Amino acid sequence: MAYETIRSERVFNGILIDIYHDVIRLPDGRETVREIVRHSPAAAILPIDADGKLILVRQYRHAVNAMTLEIPAGILEKGEDPAAGAARELEEETGKKAGRLTFIFKFYSSIGYCDEDLSVYIAEDLISTAQNLDDDEFVTIERYSPDEVFQMIIDGKIIDSKTTAAALYYIASQRR
Amino acid sequence: MAYETIRSERVFNGILIDIYHDVIRLPDGRETVREIVRHSPAAAILPIDADGKLILVRQYRHAVNAMTLEIPAGILEKGEDPAAGAARELEEETGKKAGRLTFIFKFYSSIGYCDEDLSVYIAEDLISTAQNLDDDEFVTIERYSPDEVFQMIIDGKIIDSKTTAAALYYIASQRR
Repeated sequence: MAYETIRSERVFNGILIDIYHDVIRLPDGRETVREIVRHSPAAAILPIDADGKLILVRQYRHAVNAMTLEIPAGILEKGEDPAAGAARELEEETGKKAGRLTFIFKFYSSIGYCDEDLSVYIAEDLISTAQNLDDDEFVTIERYSPDEVFQMIIDGKIIDSKTTAAALYYIASQRR
Repeated sequence: MAYETIRSERVFNGILIDIYHDVIRLPDGRETVREIVRHSPAAAILPIDADGKLILVRQYRHAVNAMTLEIPAGILEKGEDPAAGAARELEEETGKKAGRLTFIFKFYSSIGYCDEDLSVYIAEDLISTAQNLDDDEFVTIERYSPDEVFQMIIDGKIIDSKTTAAALYYIASQRR
């Protein structure tokens, strides 16, 4: 199907995001507006420890006004390779280096209106170093078995898309 | 840990989203700014047909400039119950009514900076009605087995967070 962008106007220029109002032509020839959030790509990483437990970080998330349980993740630095970014975030947030890093998938967080993509990895054969948090990050580490994580997703104790998707991928793979 | 919102200013008022710059106090007493996207809650629904295949919809997504393969989903109407919204989107996009609707989980799409939550359901015992798309929706329907969908996630043919998470939940449950 043919969709054509007729014009694109930046209507907000923010700290982390920009907003565009794009006029597009639909397949039937009519024009419509799409409001689009532009955001840098990011990477996330599910660390598995030597006992087969998933390592999660608990931190305050202002957008949802809650302490959440997530896999380590962050925005890529300009030009940074997603695998390098995932490894960097892992080390910063948990103080672990990945002996083995496996790409599992990439997805868009909010495909209807935002271009942020997230490359997701699994980290195994972990090597301990030191946590190195950003200035305004306060993070604690927790470990759970795959079955515990599955139950926490069902119980609403894990409420983050990347953590849900990465953990369910790992669980589905293990059960194969 | 104590995080306090000191002030909140709306810096952009859009069609679907608003942007706020919130000043918050960190546990160590310092102040910092969080840029937050406010977006209405949404619902998504994974339909399973009588052959155990997953029903997906293919549509153009301007934010990522691609034809994508997703489970039906949409923004809730004001005050709408998420289950009702999921059933409505299913019927509009696929022309199917859910004989059985099961809530699986709720998650935040982009928990670092956006308050959009998505309630996710599985629809079974489907009853055919008629597709009833929004004015600017052009959607086609495809069906795949759980193993095909798992492979499409790995191959980058499914690139949408809600679809990845819902399908992996279904696959992990089936493999239990």
